[in-house]
Amino acid sequence: MVHRLFVLNGPNLNMLGRREPEIYGRTTLAGIEERCRELARELDFDMFFAQSNNEGQLLDWLHRAYEEEAAVIINPAGLTTRSVSLLDAMRMLRQPIVEVHLTNIFQREPTYHQSLTAYAAWGFIAGLGASGYELAMRGLAGKLAGGDGP
Amino acid sequence: MVHRLFVLNGPNLNMLGRREPEIYGRTTLAGIEERCRELARELDFDMFFAQSNNEGQLLDWLHRAYEEEAAVIINPAGLTTRSVSLLDAMRMLRQPIVEVHLTNIFQREPTYHQSLTAYAAWGFIAGLGASGYELAMRGLAGKLAGGDGP
Amino acid sequence: MVHRLFVLNGPNLNMLGRREPEIYGRTTLAGIEERCRELARELDFDMFFAQSNNEGQLLDWLHRAYEEEAAVIINPAGLTTRSVSLLDAMRMLRQPIVEVHLTNIFQREPTYHQSLTAYAAWGFIAGLGASGYELAMRGLAGKLAGGDGP
Amino acid sequence: MVHRLFVLNGPNLNMLGRREPEIYGRTTLAGIEERCRELARELDFDMFFAQSNNEGQLLDWLHRAYEEEAAVIINPAGLTTRSVSLLDAMRMLRQPIVEVHLTNIFQREPTYHQSLTAYAAWGFIAGLGASGYELAMRGLAGKLAGGDGP
Amino acid sequence: MVHRLFVLNGPNLNMLGRREPEIYGRTTLAGIEERCRELARELDFDMFFAQSNNEGQLLDWLHRAYEEEAAVIINPAGLTTRSVSLLDAMRMLRQPIVEVHLTNIFQREPTYHQSLTAYAAWGFIAGLGASGYELAMRGLAGKLAGGDGP
Amino acid sequence: MVHRLFVLNGPNLNMLGRREPEIYGRTTLAGIEERCRELARELDFDMFFAQSNNEGQLLDWLHRAYEEEAAVIINPAGLTTRSVSLLDAMRMLRQPIVEVHLTNIFQREPTYHQSLTAYAAWGFIAGLGASGYELAMRGLAGKLAGGDGP
Amino acid sequence: MVHRLFVLNGPNLNMLGRREPEIYGRTTLAGIEERCRELARELDFDMFFAQSNNEGQLLDWLHRAYEEEAAVIINPAGLTTRSVSLLDAMRMLRQPIVEVHLTNIFQREPTYHQSLTAYAAWGFIAGLGASGYELAMRGLAGKLAGGDGP
Amino acid sequence: MVHRLFVLNGPNLNMLGRREPEIYGRTTLAGIEERCRELARELDFDMFFAQSNNEGQLLDWLHRAYEEEAAVIINPAGLTTRSVSLLDAMRMLRQPIVEVHLTNIFQREPTYHQSLTAYAAWGFIAGLGASGYELAMRGLAGKLAGGDGP
Amino acid sequence: MVHRLFVLNGPNLNMLGRREPEIYGRTTLAGIEERCRELARELDFDMFFAQSNNEGQLLDWLHRAYEEEAAVIINPAGLTTRSVSLLDAMRMLRQPIVEVHLTNIFQREPTYHQSLTAYAAWGFIAGLGASGYELAMRGLAGKLAGGDGP
Amino acid sequence: MVHRLFVLNGPNLNMLGRREPEIYGRTTLAGIEERCRELARELDFDMFFAQSNNEGQLLDWLHRAYEEEAAVIINPAGLTTRSVSLLDAMRMLRQPIVEVHLTNIFQREPTYHQSLTAYAAWGFIAGLGASGYELAMRGLAGKLAGGDGP
Amino acid sequence: MVHRLFVLNGPNLNMLGRREPEIYGRTTLAGIEERCRELARELDFDMFFAQSNNEGQLLDWLHRAYEEEAAVIINPAGLTTRSVSLLDAMRMLRQPIVEVHLTNIFQREPTYHQSLTAYAAWGFIAGLGASGYELAMRGLAGKLAGGDGP
Amino acid sequence: MVHRLFVLNGPNLNMLGRREPEIYGRTTLAGIEERCRELARELDFDMFFAQSNNEGQLLDWLHRAYEEEAAVIINPAGLTTRSVSLLDAMRMLRQPIVEVHLTNIFQREPTYHQSLTAYAAWGFIAGLGASGYELAMRGLAGKLAGGDGP
Repeated sequence: MVHRLFVLNGPNLNMLGRREPEIYGRTTLAGIEERCRELARELDFDMFFAQSNNEGQLLDWLHRAYEEEAAVIINPAGLTTRSVSLLDAMRMLRQPIVEVHLTNIFQREPTYHQSLTAYAAWGFIAGLGASGYELAMRGLAGKLAGGDGP
Repeated sequence: MVHRLFVLNGPNLNMLGRREPEIYGRTTLAGIEERCRELARELDFDMFFAQSNNEGQLLDWLHRAYEEEAAVIINPAGLTTRSVSLLDAMRMLRQPIVEVHLTNIFQREPTYHQSLTAYAAWGFIAGLGASGYELAMRGLAGKLAGGDGP
Repeated sequence: MVHRLFVLNGPNLNMLGRREPEIYGRTTLAGIEERCRELARELDFDMFFAQSNNEGQLLDWLHRAYEEEAAVIINPAGLTTRSVSLLDAMRMLRQPIVEVHLTNIFQREPTYHQSLTAYAAWGFIAGLGASGYELAMRGLAGKLAGGDGP
Repeated sequence: MVHRLFVLNGPNLNMLGRREPEIYGRTTLAGIEERCRELARELDFDMFFAQSNNEGQLLDWLHRAYEEEAAVIINPAGLTTRSVSLLDAMRMLRQPIVEVHLTNIFQREPTYHQSLTAYAAWGFIAGLGASGYELAMRGLAGKLAGGDGP
Repeated sequence: MVHRLFVLNGPNLNMLGRREPEIYGRTTLAGIEERCRELARELDFDMFFAQSNNEGQLLDWLHRAYEEEAAVIINPAGLTTRSVSLLDAMRMLRQPIVEVHLTNIFQREPTYHQSLTAYAAWGFIAGLGASGYELAMRGLAGKLAGGDGP
Repeated sequence: MVHRLFVLNGPNLNMLGRREPEIYGRTTLAGIEERCRELARELDFDMFFAQSNNEGQLLDWLHRAYEEEAAVIINPAGLTTRSVSLLDAMRMLRQPIVEVHLTNIFQREPTYHQSLTAYAAWGFIAGLGASGYELAMRGLAGKLAGGDGP
Repeated sequence: MVHRLFVLNGPNLNMLGRREPEIYGRTTLAGIEERCRELARELDFDMFFAQSNNEGQLLDWLHRAYEEEAAVIINPAGLTTRSVSLLDAMRMLRQPIVEVHLTNIFQREPTYHQSLTAYAAWGFIAGLGASGYELAMRGLAGKLAGGDGP
Repeated sequence: MVHRLFVLNGPNLNMLGRREPEIYGRTTLAGIEERCRELARELDFDMFFAQSNNEGQLLDWLHRAYEEEAAVIINPAGLTTRSVSLLDAMRMLRQPIVEVHLTNIFQREPTYHQSLTAYAAWGFIAGLGASGYELAMRGLAGKLAGGDGP
Repeated sequence: MVHRLFVLNGPNLNMLGRREPEIYGRTTLAGIEERCRELARELDFDMFFAQSNNEGQLLDWLHRAYEEEAAVIINPAGLTTRSVSLLDAMRMLRQPIVEVHLTNIFQREPTYHQSLTAYAAWGFIAGLGASGYELAMRGLAGKLAGGDGP
Repeated sequence: MVHRLFVLNGPNLNMLGRREPEIYGRTTLAGIEERCRELARELDFDMFFAQSNNEGQLLDWLHRAYEEEAAVIINPAGLTTRSVSLLDAMRMLRQPIVEVHLTNIFQREPTYHQSLTAYAAWGFIAGLGASGYELAMRGLAGKLAGGDGP
Repeated sequence: MVHRLFVLNGPNLNMLGRREPEIYGRTTLAGIEERCRELARELDFDMFFAQSNNEGQLLDWLHRAYEEEAAVIINPAGLTTRSVSLLDAMRMLRQPIVEVHLTNIFQREPTYHQSLTAYAAWGFIAGLGASGYELAMRGLAGKLAGGDGP
Repeated sequence: MVHRLFVLNGPNLNMLGRREPEIYGRTTLAGIEERCRELARELDFDMFFAQSNNEGQLLDWLHRAYEEEAAVIINPAGLTTRSVSLLDAMRMLRQPIVEVHLTNIFQREPTYHQSLTAYAAWGFIAGLGASGYELAMRGLAGKLAGGDGP
């Protein structure tokens, strides 16, 4: 069975590979998308992959994911610690969400330690670099197949 | 190339499947070990899998992992938020560590929200149930193969 | 005398009726607009009713309300607790503002307890459901007629 | 159908009109009662309206409201931020409660920002002056008629 | 010119002399009253001296002091740190208030360090024992004679 | 030897059995009194059992307990976390005090977690329901007989 | 009917009677065990009484109590305020738990004021000295007989 | 040598001159732009001057500044204290940034005291009114000419 | 009997009468000294009156007061809330100290609310303007004559 | 018209150029004074430039600035975050003050993040190195000529 | 006279010399023991030197030190900031304790700044590397000889 | 090789032996100097020993220590917890610093628990009384000889 999947990327992730490479590595978002597309074929996901610097746009996509009963992978980036709007939109969804961060937020400055949005996620992956997206996809595939977790 | 891997489980995880199943699910630790063993064969890991209710025992295992230059997957359970000793032992290691939690700690009571030990981990996975261990193994396999992350 | 009135709705309120109905009820925003339109006719308000997921759009509308010397009813939703920009825009207005929330924010998780924006409002109504909008209109009508309050 | 309604006023509200008029306005409590009586006739409420400077007296009235299955409008005044006893008594009631404040508590000194008692209320109205009582009555009338809210 | 003066004493002060004498000394409230009466004659005060364990009673007396345009000396005792109602009543008065404590609150347990009510006082005297009442009377006498202070 | 014992109950406890029975159970205060009277006969206590919604009344009873050199069992209910006056009155007593709560305050909302008054108690019992009163009586009987505790 | 009961004592309690006797009194743990054994006979408990300085050992005993469906009395001593592992183990149990402390923790230094583990207990007794164990046994006997509490 | 310079203005600054003039003065943003243009000619800056109420737009401009290796003057207005996204975008830049505020943020309400974004700036100027922009330009001119600062 | 008395004044008090007269009034320090000298004659004090902007100088004077077994009146001004050195020096003295503030510190900005040094004082007088010095002298005279206070 | 200007430098600034040059740069205070003198001639300031490690000395200079109606540039250095005395002295002045820091305090350790004294300043410049002094002079020149700011 | 001395080392110190040598240096625990043995001979100490990763083991050793009336040098390592059990055991001892840390805890991450256990120590030495143990021995030798300290 | 050593003592230490002897003991500063002089001869230190109640004087001495490349022992006394200026001066030095306190600051009131200045020290010794100075000298001697510590 084919599952609908939204992979959503928040503010500044379009700059990936150029933005503080000593923290975020040299992978670009296009590179991540490519790896996700490949795995989506393997795992039978009908994937929508997008990035926006605009909170409002991200909310619209989450509303669409709600309509399409899609699972969601989201890297909220700079919105992680503060956006109640994003949290509210994520709480609405009926399919599982995995929140992904490229870096281990617990190793960064305290400003980055908390995730407000994770409250609405089923899974949370941080710090495994770009492979975190692939792991999230595998985790969702298992979950949607009736597998793990409470 | 075969890599050494320690999968370490903290206090109370021996009770998995019986302990508050509405939170932790019905999978047992033996079931998780079996799934990990299977994947270890696929990913060429030489795996040591163990559980202890005793902080001192976990420290000893981490010291041994240091000696054997092993990568580590650790679910510190009740020691996550407070054990400076565990944090100190994890900081010593030269191979990557992934911290795994069966539940999404951000959805639980505030007592469980913080991870003190995660500061010493390369990756952090929470809330994808037992599959989190498998994802951690895949992530480490990629990392040791020279792959992702900063 | 006809008064100009802006009724502004923040992020995710377009999903009302579908979003966590056990918290927000099943009324839709269209339903609320209709009830407001009806009462606007009775109370002689020239009403502009709108919703946006975009903070910038809400600021633009508040600036227009400033130009048109309109009274304002605003449900800032997810922007309530954090948006200094919204607070700044509201402080600019010369006509009274009533902040409305569908739910009693004091009964929700601590994340929702505080209102940053309410500092700039004349009145604050929370938890009476959709009727809160109507009560706010009545309150403003009385106020603009020279009535209550300090 | 006639509904029983208790309108309860906390400490110092007997001094309304004289107490810091630049904050609370010049309306007296007798003036408010009169406006409430008028509206009670229109909305078919059997109203009990009272004020006390004594927490114990307010608790007794709330217990009576419990016995008489009355809805309640309460302005806890100086007891708002600290009285666990009042909170406990309000939590007992089976009919909806609206907490009313004459001023917008979010515009005052931090001492006044929080409402402890609001946790037990269905609705919360602050800052619309004396008309807040009337709006609360309208809100309760709608609620008791089977209307709004979750 | 004769000035009206209320000397009000809060909860437990009727037990003075018996209550933890190592903290509060052995003077009784009757002894304090006597000393105040004597000085009242000298300073031409028409004094009302009273004690209550009941917050509501203290509020009533403050309301009466408002009516009689009396100056006030108040020892709020256990109500000092928490009673918003007392603070509200004191803010209403038009004559100066001096808050008096028998002990130096800064030397006691942290629970006693703060005074919430002092915000509404003109003067604050703590820790000089029973003579604090007399000093407060002298201070008020000077103030009412057009003297000191901002 | 017969000992004098005061069993004092704070605000809202007169409503016991009706107030949130899922939290406080269905026992009434009369039922508790009866069980205490029976045990008082067995343990040779001369018991005074009372309830008040009024802090001032509770203080008066504590002052009387001081005069009569009585031991005290007190359930301060809503006054537990905030009443410095109650704390002050309890500190005066020369016989041991046991503070009793029907529910385990550590399992409730954070508002209920702290006891300010317990500082002045010899013993503290919470969460064993109505039997807590009986256990407190037994504990006091042993203590007064020259037994346990520092 | 005979009930299984575990009485578990945490770190340093083996030193009771020698450790700071001005705080903990002169009773030894052996003395407490003897009194408990006697009462266990009276109340028909099949009692296991033990002490350990080792958190891991205490967890093992709690797991065994789970297996044997035993009620538990636990004095977590130095683990009270911090051990999430102990809390987790206690949450697993299906029979009631009473947490006992020899001293009134609210009278000690702030480090000792909080109980983290009490969240998982049915009852909480502090400060009645060694008799607290006996009272806990009586409380459990009543509870298991179908009696008190919510 | 001509340097590229972006002067970016955040939410509500388009209303400058009308918005709370007692705080922000009567200068308009057009007036500020004019003064900056004049000085840019003198200091040989190729200046881009813009304002947006939209966080996403500001991020896009910062990304462009990154591409064009421009120095930046930014007045983040309402985004100052909370926008991690803005902070992230500013940290990416390779040329110096000066953060400018028209008012001295330390004299305003606590909500405005902190700057989150300043962490990513080389210089910070607050409270000198519109001339702050000119001073920032002079500071950057000196810096780019190889001058001051660490 | 003649008593030695030091009246010490901290930073900026030399500017009294010119410094923010709307807060501190128009009395000068010379004026205060004169009033104190007069009263010292009446009360038989051998008075040393001085002011310094230098913490070290104030410490030297307190050391001298220690040598001369003098009572002390001190207005620590800007050193009140932070100077541990002043606190340490005051704790050394064997005669009573009264800390005096011209204004009621509880009515000012939170920065001024706390007194660190008051911990070492016998009495504390704030907010009665310059007469506070005279009242402090009277209080000390009584105390040294064997009178009030604990 | 010639304006009087005080440029005051706090503790340790005499060591500039040697003290942690990786943070503060290699410019000496003499170098800064020279640049200021040059600009003072251009802008027609009658400048007094000084440094002291002694808080009392800085207060004396501020008092003199008050007498001479001078504008002030002050770098309070280590006194920035804690000196209420400095704050008090600065609040006295009638001419504008600009507070200058060589480094961007928001990029340093949290100990340095806050400025207590800035509350009393008109302008605040941090992090532009030694040129911050020159910019402050230009800002003051404009202000005194009747220009910018509220 | 020969004094008994326990030198106890907490979790992970067995790894000294390999664990983060840039923080802890390259000395091994065996090296430290050797230096201590040498000095023990000089100072006439009968020394027991041991390390454990197990809190329970450390408690047992402290209990034995109590029995043997030994002085104690303890490096609690990861248990420093959190172990109430260790604190309790240390408080029991009758001979002086010196707590030693190899690094200056005030220079490390905030997690390491506080010492909970130091409350029970007579002396505290941090940051002088392995020589801290020797200094502690010298300090204890002087103390036991009747020398320094309060 | 002879090393230069500054032993600096902060406010009130000139009173040692008279100041609260139950806390600080009866040793005088002259006594400490003598013991240090003796040991300086043994360890080949060229020692400067001084005390000041004046922060500015201490800064001057630290600046001189910088010039003379001296090691430093400093007892900052009342400046320990608050003096950023002292911290700044200490950070400048190139030779190791040991901060010494006569008492164990962790056993005193919370006001004394923190050391702000210790951040700039290599070693920290507290609570061993006057011998702490001697131990610090030994520690520095070892360090300067190329020995311990990171």
